[in-house]
Formats: sequence, structure tokens, C-alpha cells
Amino acid sequence: MTLPTPLTGVVPPVCTPLTPDREVDVPSLVRLVDHLLSAGVDALFVLGSSSEAAYLTDGRRRLVVETVVSHVSGRVPVLAGAIDMTTPRVLDHVAYAAAAGADAVVVTAPFYTRTHPAEVARHYRLVAERSPVPVFAYDIPVAVHTKLSPELVLELAGEGTLAGLKDSSGDLAAFRTVVTGARTRPGIRGFSVLTGSELVVDSALALGADGAVPGLANVDPEGYVRLDRLCRAGDWAAARAEQERLCALFGMTGAGDPARMGGSSSGLGAFKAALFLRGVIACPATAEPQVALSEAETEQVGKYLAAAGLL
Amino acid sequence: MTLPTPLTGVVPPVCTPLTPDREVDVPSLVRLVDHLLSAGVDALFVLGSSSEAAYLTDGRRRLVVETVVSHVSGRVPVLAGAIDMTTPRVLDHVAYAAAAGADAVVVTAPFYTRTHPAEVARHYRLVAERSPVPVFAYDIPVAVHTKLSPELVLELAGEGTLAGLKDSSGDLAAFRTVVTGARTRPGIRGFSVLTGSELVVDSALALGADGAVPGLANVDPEGYVRLDRLCRAGDWAAARAEQERLCALFGMTGAGDPARMGGSSSGLGAFKAALFLRGVIACPATAEPQVALSEAETEQVGKYLAAAGLL
Amino acid sequence: MTLPTPLTGVVPPVCTPLTPDREVDVPSLVRLVDHLLSAGVDALFVLGSSSEAAYLTDGRRRLVVETVVSHVSGRVPVLAGAIDMTTPRVLDHVAYAAAAGADAVVVTAPFYTRTHPAEVARHYRLVAERSPVPVFAYDIPVAVHTKLSPELVLELAGEGTLAGLKDSSGDLAAFRTVVTGARTRPGIRGFSVLTGSELVVDSALALGADGAVPGLANVDPEGYVRLDRLCRAGDWAAARAEQERLCALFGMTGAGDPARMGGSSSGLGAFKAALFLRGVIACPATAEPQVALSEAETEQVGKYLAAAGLL
Amino acid sequence: MTLPTPLTGVVPPVCTPLTPDREVDVPSLVRLVDHLLSAGVDALFVLGSSSEAAYLTDGRRRLVVETVVSHVSGRVPVLAGAIDMTTPRVLDHVAYAAAAGADAVVVTAPFYTRTHPAEVARHYRLVAERSPVPVFAYDIPVAVHTKLSPELVLELAGEGTLAGLKDSSGDLAAFRTVVTGARTRPGIRGFSVLTGSELVVDSALALGADGAVPGLANVDPEGYVRLDRLCRAGDWAAARAEQERLCALFGMTGAGDPARMGGSSSGLGAFKAALFLRGVIACPATAEPQVALSEAETEQVGKYLAAAGLL
Repeated sequence: MTLPTPLTGVVPPVCTPLTPDREVDVPSLVRLVDHLLSAGVDALFVLGSSSEAAYLTDGRRRLVVETVVSHVSGRVPVLAGAIDMTTPRVLDHVAYAAAAGADAVVVTAPFYTRTHPAEVARHYRLVAERSPVPVFAYDIPVAVHTKLSPELVLELAGEGTLAGLKDSSGDLAAFRTVVTGARTRPGIRGFSVLTGSELVVDSALALGADGAVPGLANVDPEGYVRLDRLCRAGDWAAARAEQERLCALFGMTGAGDPARMGGSSSGLGAFKAALFLRGVIACPATAEPQVALSEAETEQVGKYLAAAGLL
Repeated sequence: MTLPTPLTGVVPPVCTPLTPDREVDVPSLVRLVDHLLSAGVDALFVLGSSSEAAYLTDGRRRLVVETVVSHVSGRVPVLAGAIDMTTPRVLDHVAYAAAAGADAVVVTAPFYTRTHPAEVARHYRLVAERSPVPVFAYDIPVAVHTKLSPELVLELAGEGTLAGLKDSSGDLAAFRTVVTGARTRPGIRGFSVLTGSELVVDSALALGADGAVPGLANVDPEGYVRLDRLCRAGDWAAARAEQERLCALFGMTGAGDPARMGGSSSGLGAFKAALFLRGVIACPATAEPQVALSEAETEQVGKYLAAAGLL
Repeated sequence: MTLPTPLTGVVPPVCTPLTPDREVDVPSLVRLVDHLLSAGVDALFVLGSSSEAAYLTDGRRRLVVETVVSHVSGRVPVLAGAIDMTTPRVLDHVAYAAAAGADAVVVTAPFYTRTHPAEVARHYRLVAERSPVPVFAYDIPVAVHTKLSPELVLELAGEGTLAGLKDSSGDLAAFRTVVTGARTRPGIRGFSVLTGSELVVDSALALGADGAVPGLANVDPEGYVRLDRLCRAGDWAAARAEQERLCALFGMTGAGDPARMGGSSSGLGAFKAALFLRGVIACPATAEPQVALSEAETEQVGKYLAAAGLL
Repeated sequence: MTLPTPLTGVVPPVCTPLTPDREVDVPSLVRLVDHLLSAGVDALFVLGSSSEAAYLTDGRRRLVVETVVSHVSGRVPVLAGAIDMTTPRVLDHVAYAAAAGADAVVVTAPFYTRTHPAEVARHYRLVAERSPVPVFAYDIPVAVHTKLSPELVLELAGEGTLAGLKDSSGDLAAFRTVVTGARTRPGIRGFSVLTGSELVVDSALALGADGAVPGLANVDPEGYVRLDRLCRAGDWAAARAEQERLCALFGMTGAGDPARMGGSSSGLGAFKAALFLRGVIACPATAEPQVALSEAETEQVGKYLAAAGLL
């Protein structure tokens, strides 16, 4: 399908259901996509951080994007992460994602290597030149240890290198600079500014963001769609109440014991446990070397679901 | 060949020569290997950070390890980096490196993801279980933003998970804890402790390290072999003089203008410029999105070579 | 005066005007206080980061708090930073600030030392036990390299250790957790949650914050008072427009050349240049070792003022 | 006394004994100084990180430097830390330390504030201009979050701003650059390069350092004096054995439970527990808000002492 310019609304970063032996669980993935589409989301983002892209082999990544694009079949746009260390490796991911029919790719700054603002800019320009589909920047300093400056993003937007930004930096002030700049700078048109900060989606939309990419929307897509619609209607009080309900639900990501596992194991483990408990996916396994939630921790996730009326 | 336990001596991390269009330059790579072997190095390490592994597609990585293993043909051991974000992706690299005949693989802590000491340990255990060849830990916090604790390394050494450590942390005190522990803890045998800190190889060998993995040995392998032999002979004064000569030569890595490029572009660019100027490789290109040295910067590299009597 | 519980509204962090030889310029400080009070601000915060507290000797700090408390004479509450590395040193600052009549003190986590969550909690408990006036936590990880977790803040609020939070972390999601918790947790009453993020004050107030501590309010206090009133009236569209105007004005903080000076020199230098150009203070000097803005950079500040109708 | 140029040998950073109510325990401090002097140390460093300077009020700092200078009475040089955030605050500490008779002051880069290389250089120049005694740079990035570059240190050495460097960065390669530069650059004379890395003192001396500032020398000054003398005699094998014995003793700094306290509480707590167990000081208390070692943890410290033949 044609990518709307700008892309707006709720764009869940789709979790990747795995079998007990850590292969992609295709039937569960298809059910998860249906679960999201039937809630009315506006697009899907596969192979991002919430999809455990960092944990998926190239073969599994390709299977994910092919499965989702094929199942969605043009009903909504599908964005695909092309997460790797540098330009040449990213372009290999871009190639199969575009071949599978993804409508855009989402690309971080280089990582692992020591990089430099000039190299970050060059990276995006080279990727965009060679990508058959539009390129979104993925600003995720917690993963890549580089923050994309608003100035760079706007420069790349203005010259047509970037079609959008998925901001997971948590820095709302910098985000606002991009939002405002994208609206006011001459030469920028149709640039999509999306927040990945699922706990302040109302704030992001209020200041002019185009949409949101909330990991928690895997668990409660209806909630985020409702939140989005309330914001668009300007009903800020109801939006805030909905957002606060979702913030409470997000508490599930702290279910895992920090003495035993990291934030990814706990957070993605909780999302998958919730999807399992809600009957969407067949197995809550996360990819290796993440640590699994215990039974008691999984029960705690269930309590969050119950408190939110989702179980 | 059988990997010596412990592996000792000079183990250059082999640069990856590229053609002007950034394909692996196989003839130059073969010449570089000959340049290193004829200097008397003890083993080779391909696909590490100095090899620009982060910038090489899987196809190029595979070509590098196949080329080097085949050309070396058992004369010295070949270690291969298997640099990727998490266990499943690392194992894909381990598979082709082992199939190509690498004698060991070198693996970092997980990166990009938020990780946890328990997950780092699990990562190494899972990789080692499934690797057909011995596993070295690659401690490189500047790249992966996690420091491997000496305690963890020694625990994994003691249980047979790890065969060695390549330490690029720059933390000599922690390194010493591993060196001393590897010698004194019951149950650890043949564990190889290698420093990646090319400017203090004499210090590392003096405190008991088994060997060194100096990036600068691409440019001056004879110097590092000489340094290693002087240290083994206990001629510390001559060793220090040789090390200081190499430290001066290392100044070339600062040739690139920091306003225009990052440390990797400048450092690896200087190594490749030096290999080009010395006639070892056909083209000094570094991988994208790194920035190339200017002509004036390349001339500066030449001056360092001349001052060291290498041009 | 009695501190309102919670303290709400606009609480400018008062700049500290200096003479050309870097003594406190008392007449300018008094004029600045008048400039703020006449705009209708709700309280004042002296000796925070925007006040260059880190650059003021104890004698100058004492003179600042005495001057401001005495001149304000109870018209609004005065909060005073007690910025130092650890408990005993902080308590020395608390003593003179309280003696001068400050209504509350504002205290960061320990810094310089390697600290621990248990030690951070102990720090606040010890300070609060021995402080004659209420204690606000100052969450400023960019300065102290520790983030106060929402859980800790709420625990300390619940037990009566803390009277409020001044959040300069830029992490709106964590801030929201405190805001919501302060409203809903049993046992927390009158706790004041203030944002220091001057570019998203509308967002912070919309999600329930009590007030703001915007450095830029030194330059345009009327703007922030207007913004606060619009938010309280629920006129979010007008609030957003006012906030965006202030964001544009904030551009002045980038006036200093980053090749020549740090962010503090540029940002505080711009605020002081603006106050000088507006005729509020007699000299735009910043404290040592900060670097002064050039004439051209100062002119640029003037252009921001002119664009905002402030010159 | 006149400060030797360069200052060489063992310069313990003197712990600050406290009474149970956290006042400076002057008799214990005097005994500690005697314990160090009788071991043959070459100078003393008071009010550094190991002295808990960050935790001492100005009054206590002044008492420490006056007590030590007066008791030492010129037998060895006394260096005094002047640890504070910026130039004006540092100069207040310089003033009383110099008035007390300290032979030099030791000054870090600015902290708490966002700083810049140009501001760091300006800081040292301003302090040196106004200090009545020579200034040493204190490179301690773990505390101040800025690394002093070897280039800057050598530039400041060459122009006479700095008289020496106390390096606690743990970066031996950068340290070596300073050591070598101080010996070879025209215009640098008598500059003293001291390592604070107590676990690699042999390495530092082998590569040409002038001396060491080892925190553990509080506990075992004879060991470090012996180590220093062995290094100067070129008996590297015996030096290494002595250093390894001291490394084993250093294990005591891990006695504190990391779930309950930070590295400073554990490390300085262990040093003070050891001094208490050895009968040098009257009370092992550390300053607030540090957490005390438990009885079991203190016993563990005792075991390290016993294993080293020190109890």
C-alpha cells in the first residue's frame, strides 16, 4: 500500500511469538496481528526492539516480515526495523524487508562502533539512497548510545532522506523540537513524527506528534486506539484518564526480579506473558539469553491484566 | 590445527582490506596475512573490531574467514570474531566460522539490548554449548557498554565455558585479576589471557598475560614480535624502549580531524593508509559510513611511518 | 511565610547577577527579583543550577539567599538549593539557608562519590531529620549522574522525608509516575511535584504537575505565568501556542559556539545576556571558569529577544 | 618544606579517622600519620577521595590539613586535595590548605556542571594563577565524569600551570602518554606523574611513573614502600610478587554487600575496619550517608589482614 504522509495514529511494535524451542511461532504471530488489526490500529511495526529483533537470526527476521506483510495484505502499512550495526549490514536487512513488501524501514544510528555525527548523517544518506522504500530514523539511545539531535533529524527530513522518526529517547523536549520543526520549516512535508514513549502518548499527541509506537499496545491495543481517538478529539481529560489506566497496566513490566534478570527480560517477558494469558499467543517464551519469568512473576502479570479488566 | 592451551604471543587482529567499492579485496588480504606471518606472529584474529567486523555483511565476513583460514593452512591458529547482538545471532556467525576452519571464536557480551550479568553468563554458556570450537570472551565495553567482571570470566573459565579472554577494556587492574586467577584458581587450566591494549603490551606481559592482540601489529608486526620476545626474555628495559617506539607510531591513529570523523574512521583509516603506503594492500578504503582520511591526513600517517623507519 | 502544600505555579530558578569581578551584584539581584515578582510568579528558587550555585563560594551563596529572602519579605515562598556532595556538607548549606529564612531547601542525590540507592535514601533521611525547614528532592542526573527512581521519591514522600520534587531529569514518564503516585498513594499529602523542563511545562501541567521551575522564566517570567494560567484554565491550545513561543525563545541558549564553550556557558550566558539587554541586570558576566559569549553571540541573543517582542 | 621536583615514591592518600559521632578523630589521625611515616613513605596526600574529602565539611577539612601538616612538621611533603565543583569554590579550599602549610594542592576538573575542555583548561590556569602553592591535577573520571586528556595535561605542564598529575583514571595507556611526554617534551621539567591505581603500581613504575598514591597503603604502607624500592632496584620479579600480595589484600574492599551499600562504603569501610583491627585508629566509622560494614563483613576484613600476615 502507499504509505500515508505523514503516517499517523497507533503503530504497535509487534512482539515476535516464539515456540518453546525459540523458532518463530507463525500461527501465534498471525493471531497477534489479527488481535491488533481488529482493535483498529493504524499500522504495524515489525522487527523493532519490542519484537526482539536483536535476538532474531536473519532467517527468523525474514520470516517475521514475510508473514506479517502477507497476512496484513495491504490493510494497513507495515514498517520493518532494519536493525544492525552499520550501513552495509543494515542494507542487507533493508533488502529482504523491502522484497517482502514492507512499506518503510526503520533504522537506528550505527552502534557497536565509535561513531560521529558526520558518520550518522552519512549512514542515513547512504541507506536512503539505496533503499527501495522510505526510511524512518529510530532514535533509541538506550540501545545505540547515540542521541539523534533534532537538528540532524530536521536536516535529513528537509532533504528527503528521512520519511519519519520513531523516537524512543524519552526526551520529550527534543521530540517537540522535531515536531514543531517538521510543521514549520520550509521544505519539510509529510514527515511523520512518532513517539515510542508509551507512558506519555497523550503528551506527545498534545504537542503535535503524528502518532505513537507503544510496546504495551501489544497487550491492550484497544486502549491505545481509544487514547489516540480521544486526543484527536481534543478530549484531554478523558485521554489523560485512559493514559493513566495504561500507565498502571504498564506496571507489569516490573514483574521480573531485577536481581535475576535485566529490563528486557522483564519487560518483554511481561508483554508475552500477558499475550499468553489473554490467549493470543501459544507460548510466552522470550529469546535467548533472556531469562524467563517465574510462575509467581507470571501470576503478577495476570493481576495487572485483571486489574485492567483484560482477563 | 590444535589450539595451544594457553594460546600465547602476538595475535594481530587482521584488518580487512576493501576494494574502492567496498568488497573484500582478497589478494590484499592474502598479502596482509603473509606480511604478518613472515614477521613471526603466533596466531591471527579475524573479524574483530580492527577488522571492521561491525561493517562487514555476513557474506563478506564469511569470505574473510574462509580466505584467511585457507591461506594460513594450519601454520598458525586462526581465531574468528562472531560479533553480534545476542546468542542466536552469534551462533549463526559461529557456524560459518567453524565450518571455514577457524580454531576458536571470539564473542562479546550481548549489546543493543539492555542486559544483565545473569544474561551475560547465560549467553556465554549457550554459545559454548553449541559451538564446535572453543570460545574466547571479548571484553570491549567501549563497544558493548558492558564490562565483563573478572569474577565472571574466572567462573566461566573454571567451568570450561571459556578458553580465553581478549581484553580490550583498558582496565589493567581488572585484567590482572583474571591473569592471576587463571594461574592460581583450582580447576582452571590452559586459559589464555590476551590484552588488546597495544600501548601497554609490555605491562600486560610483565604481569603474566599470555599474549597480545594489538591492532597496530597490522602496520608493524615485527615490532610487536620483537616486543613479545624481549618480554619473554625478561629484558624489560629493551622491551620498554620497543613499546615506546610503538606508542609513538600509534600516534598515527590521531591523524583524522575529530571535527570531521570519529575515532574508528581515524584509527582504522590510519592503519589502512599505513598498509597502503607500505605497499601491503591495494586500497586504503574503510567501510561505510566511515569517513575517509584526506590527502593531508594520509601524508601525516606517512610521516609516522617514516619516523619509525617503516617507509 | 508558610509554604503552601503543595507549592504550585511558576517558581523561577533565579539567576545570580555578578559584577565584572565576579562578586554578587546585589542591586541587580534585587532588580531581578522585582522583575520576577512583578510578573506574578508564585515562588522563587535561589541557589539552584541556573543560579550558578556550583560556581558560588559559600560566602556568595549566603549573600544571595539573605538578599533574596530579605527583599521578598514574605511575599512569596523562597526555596534555596543546598547543593553539595554529601550529607554533612549539604547540612552546612541548609543551616545558613534556613537561618536566612528560606522556606525550604532543595537537595540533590550525593555526587562525586560512588553512591548507592540505599545511601541516597539515607542521605535524604538524614538531611530531613536535621533540617529546620522542609526538604525538596532535586532530581538532576545530568549533574549528579544518579537518577532518583519514582519509587524512592514516593517512599520518601510517604514517610514525610520529602515535601516535594524538583525534576530536571527530562524523563517525563518517570515524572508522571511521581505525579500520579503523589495523588493516589495513601499517606502522601501536600507533596509538590515541579518540573524543571522548561520546554514541556504545558505537558507537565497537563498530566497533573503542581508547577514548574523554568530557567527561561528569568528572561520571560510573564510568558511562563501566562502559560501556567492557561494550563490551569484548561485552554490547552493557547497554552501550547505560548509554550511554543517560549521554546523558540529558548533557542538563545544555543548562541555560544560549542567548539569554544560548554552548555552551561552558553545557556546561562544567554540568560544573563538577555537580562542585561533587557536592562534588568548590570553585567552579563558568568562565573569562572565559564567562557563568555562573544559580541556576535550576544547580538544573536538580542535577536531572539526581538523576535519574541522582548526588546 | 620544598616540594621535590618531581615528587617521587609512595604518597598514601591518608584516611580520615572519625569519632562515632563523625567528628575528625585527631588522635587517631596523628597515629595514622605516624603509622605511615614510620613505614618510610615519601609524602602524604590528605583530603583526597580516600580521605572522604567529599564527606567532610569545610571545618573538618581544615582541621585535617592543619593537624597533618603540623604533626608531620616538614619531615615529608604534604599534598592537600581542594575538591570542589568549580574555580571559585576550589580557591577557597586552596586558601586554607596553603595557609595551613600544605606543600601543594590537588585539583580535579570541574564537576556537577556541564563542562568543556576549554573550561577545564581555564579552570586549571585560574587556580594556578591564584594558588600560593603548586597545583597537581587529579584525574578521576569516576568522580567528575570528565577524563583529562594527556594532551591537555602535557600542555598545562609545559606552560607551568601544573606541577604534577595524580591519575586515578585507570587508563594506563593514557597515563603512559603523560609519563613519556613529561620526559621528552621540551619545556617540561620536574613534572611529577603519580598513579592512583594501587593494583598496578609495579606496571606504572616500570613504564616510568614517578610514584604512587595507593589507598591501600593506609593499611599496609610497608608493602607499598617495599614495592616501590623493588621497582627502583629493577627487581621486577620480586616487585610483581609483592604487588600480587597487595592485590590479594585489596580483596578486602569487596567485603561490603553490594545489595546494601555502594563501592565507597565498602572500600573505605574496609580500609577503616582494617586500621581499626590493626589498632591504628579508634573507631572504624565512615562518614554519612555511607553504610557501615556489618560485624560479619568486618570479620572478613580481618581474614584478609590475617592472610597477609598483618594481624
